Amino acid sequence: MQFPITGFQLLGYSESALGKNTFQTINPQTGSPTPWKFFESTDSEVHTAMEMAASAFKTYSHLPGKDRADFLRAIAAELEEQQEHLVSVYMQESGLPEGRARGELGRTTGQLRAFAAVAESSSWMEVRIDTAQPDRTPLPKPDIRKCMRPLGPVIVFGASNFPFAFSTAGGDTASALAVGCPVVVKGHPMHAGTSEAVGRCIQRAARQTQMPEGVFSQLQGSGTGLGAALVKHPAAKAVGFTGSKAGGLALTRLGAERKEPIPVFAEMGSINPVVVLPSATEPGKGWAKAYAQSVTLGAGQFCTNPGLVLGIKGSGWTAFSKVLAAEVDAVGTACMLHSNIAAQYQSLRADFFAQPGVTRITARVDNEGDTRANGAVGVVSAAAFRKNPSLKREVFGPFTLLVTCEDHEDLVRTLPGLEGQLTASLLGNETEIQSASDVVALLGEKAGRLLINGVPTGVEVCPSMHHGGPFPATTDSRFTSVGTDAVKRWIRPLSYQNLPGGILPPALKDDNPLGILRMVNGQMTDGPI
Amino acid sequence: MQFPITGFQLLGYSESALGKNTFQTINPQTGSPTPWKFFESTDSEVHTAMEMAASAFKTYSHLPGKDRADFLRAIAAELEEQQEHLVSVYMQESGLPEGRARGELGRTTGQLRAFAAVAESSSWMEVRIDTAQPDRTPLPKPDIRKCMRPLGPVIVFGASNFPFAFSTAGGDTASALAVGCPVVVKGHPMHAGTSEAVGRCIQRAARQTQMPEGVFSQLQGSGTGLGAALVKHPAAKAVGFTGSKAGGLALTRLGAERKEPIPVFAEMGSINPVVVLPSATEPGKGWAKAYAQSVTLGAGQFCTNPGLVLGIKGSGWTAFSKVLAAEVDAVGTACMLHSNIAAQYQSLRADFFAQPGVTRITARVDNEGDTRANGAVGVVSAAAFRKNPSLKREVFGPFTLLVTCEDHEDLVRTLPGLEGQLTASLLGNETEIQSASDVVALLGEKAGRLLINGVPTGVEVCPSMHHGGPFPATTDSRFTSVGTDAVKRWIRPLSYQNLPGGILPPALKDDNPLGILRMVNGQMTDGPI
Repeated sequence: MQFPITGFQLLGYSESALGKNTFQTINPQTGSPTPWKFFESTDSEVHTAMEMAASAFKTYSHLPGKDRADFLRAIAAELEEQQEHLVSVYMQESGLPEGRARGELGRTTGQLRAFAAVAESSSWMEVRIDTAQPDRTPLPKPDIRKCMRPLGPVIVFGASNFPFAFSTAGGDTASALAVGCPVVVKGHPMHAGTSEAVGRCIQRAARQTQMPEGVFSQLQGSGTGLGAALVKHPAAKAVGFTGSKAGGLALTRLGAERKEPIPVFAEMGSINPVVVLPSATEPGKGWAKAYAQSVTLGAGQFCTNPGLVLGIKGSGWTAFSKVLAAEVDAVGTACMLHSNIAAQYQSLRADFFAQPGVTRITARVDNEGDTRANGAVGVVSAAAFRKNPSLKREVFGPFTLLVTCEDHEDLVRTLPGLEGQLTASLLGNETEIQSASDVVALLGEKAGRLLINGVPTGVEVCPSMHHGGPFPATTDSRFTSVGTDAVKRWIRPLSYQNLPGGILPPALKDDNPLGILRMVNGQMTDGPI
Repeated sequence: MQFPITGFQLLGYSESALGKNTFQTINPQTGSPTPWKFFESTDSEVHTAMEMAASAFKTYSHLPGKDRADFLRAIAAELEEQQEHLVSVYMQESGLPEGRARGELGRTTGQLRAFAAVAESSSWMEVRIDTAQPDRTPLPKPDIRKCMRPLGPVIVFGASNFPFAFSTAGGDTASALAVGCPVVVKGHPMHAGTSEAVGRCIQRAARQTQMPEGVFSQLQGSGTGLGAALVKHPAAKAVGFTGSKAGGLALTRLGAERKEPIPVFAEMGSINPVVVLPSATEPGKGWAKAYAQSVTLGAGQFCTNPGLVLGIKGSGWTAFSKVLAAEVDAVGTACMLHSNIAAQYQSLRADFFAQPGVTRITARVDNEGDTRANGAVGVVSAAAFRKNPSLKREVFGPFTLLVTCEDHEDLVRTLPGLEGQLTASLLGNETEIQSASDVVALLGEKAGRLLINGVPTGVEVCPSMHHGGPFPATTDSRFTSVGTDAVKRWIRPLSYQNLPGGILPPALKDDNPLGILRMVNGQMTDGPI
């Protein structure tokens, strides 16, 4: 069956619409409202959702990993079951094409199953056991065993640019549920219908697998009040957010100012610098075209969008710049997620082109209309770039700034002034890269992921992925929001000293009933003690 | 040779005394100043230390783990070489007895060697490798490899109560140096001489093992300005602190308000609740005496000091309380670290005894003098305790509050109101504990370490130790400041995509030259790829 979109809040197994006010989502392809009305959440609904989450935590946090894995797989199955409906709502609210919708849904179900495997394997528990030494002098050594425990209810903010993969059932939700944290989602107001349709799949999966009620709730709202109320609620123990720097910093501040401060993991995007060494400008390499595609992919609405490309003056770099600009022009006008986003893009782009020394090298003009965007490329000298902090801002959309350096020294002078980044890329042949070890080191210090000869868009979901980076790319560079290590944001260690075997958690029992790899007296082993 | 105590700042391999003002330390046993004068650091010295650390980071962060291990072991050897001198200065500044001084020094050298082993093993690097799948559809999968990297220069604040183990060469310093972070220490003003003597050992070890200059510096100052200047300096990337809640929160706020916010790991102590189930009150068990010793150990100046003991009304609990009080009285008057600490203890203790419903059950009177403290025990009903937040404050010193619960339900009603704790303890026989699973769960949610039938004082240094806990015990419950996992505070992941083998860090190379355990395509292995 297909669930109708009602505009209700999802509270545990129920739904609720206590609010008097409603809001709508817009189809950016047509500029018209979608057929649905969404109720604004009330404080009372916030409180109910959080209290249910706190109550669910007491049992959910102690369930066997296998049960949580079943829940995550049931969500994935529900999403697949509802695929046609979900894709249709997604497209109406995002303006993104069908292929993207289906691809992103596949990524989302893949993530859910990857985190199910993490839940089932208990690999996230990082077990360390040091057995007792009763005869040690001067003092006997007690038996101490440590494993990870979930923090408690997690607030997840849906992201505008990934209605499936970074929203209601996205990586934040999947990673938190995997390790035993109930989740309360604030649906993104630009795709409230998609949020509801996905949320009902989670709700149904929770009931079907008999999870404690309150393990998942979702609240909707068009303003900033709802998010603030959720982050301030005493039952909230951590926050996951993907979005703008302003939004991320505001939530981080709210989290820090609580009576009990809580960690807010905000991924706030970056400009993802790319260094083009001379050999990579050769036309046969195809990098100019590959980067034009990367810059304009999804109308440039990716946090790994390459917004800054640095090269060294010369005919190769000039030719590379021209091809890049021509290819960006060739992409044509794209539909952005929302008229607000398009307006912000158009205004920031204009501001960049008004900065001293910046030349526009794309040909398309700027009368794109309400939700449309043309790609654009600017060029500036490294000297002008270095002295103008305005040029280090992120332009969310299909824009990139080329920075022309006089020589290698000019490049090395420029890189230290960059802020923290999600990614940094380097193009060149092996000889060039070997002799540019200073550039490799500088880029590695600035970024969470360092790529050689590739484009930063496209973030694999795998154990080796780090999607995070030094501030302001994220609020805490020690954590990732993509890949299986994303669970580390939601867990804390707990040491058990001298616990009788009968009440030790299964992960810590002598006979290792979970069969997991554990550090026992300093050695890794999957055997019993 | 023995280094004279000069009162100078230690900047890299040099020393400096640009400040005009000086301060002194006091011998709490005599109340008289020690023979040394210490120069207050200047802003210019702060800047020099931080710039040297940033510069040292560039090479130190890339050194083989073996070299950093040699450095840490050389520090331990220097400390042992200087043992007599160090113990003498320590005793003059802390008033603590010789046995404690030697024991703490042994713990400190043990920690340094444990972290040397971590550095050498590279086990902290958490390597994950996912090899390329060029034929994957719809898109080829790139080669991605991830390992941990050091964050950058770390500021370490010396703690008043552990002049060796949590100060200049303590766990924060050792864990940061182990993973490639230079350290700038702010010496604790109550034991500036001990800080200098230890700092010179580190300085000498750094030179001897040819570490880059600036890998260690130490600045001294008597006010709060120096610490603030260090935390605010742009080159600082993380902060380690052990001390008061007020101090920890102030530094955390400074770290969060920077243009580039940095993590401040503050361990701020706690009241370490203990639940006594009926069988544990039996005189033959000896828990009343064991707890009297734990409460008064080191004049109660431990962050794991048991400041709250909860029991259930009855003749057993009454008798337990009497023996505990008598044993605390029998300990006698102890010398505290400083007259300020003693004054604060005496005043807070008086404030506790003035709270509604609190009865003093120890006999010793309160005219202890400037730096002396008598142990004290109070009793209050659970009902009165629950409604009075003042009774949840930490009393730094040999004091504990007994809370009498009407019955098991009254106990279970009381525990949820406790704040986050470093430790929580439960005394009882196995049958009682099995049937008190609600208490076990509640204590586990509040604490970083859960003990059965033990005392919380005494923190083992081992992989299974977690010395951290939910706020306000620490600012981030996900990290520990004791045990080998303490390194996790100072590292962040970096993913490498498509890097040529020649420039991959050794930990990530195909042939696994470090011979470490790595996750390769989802499987743990110490073999090559």
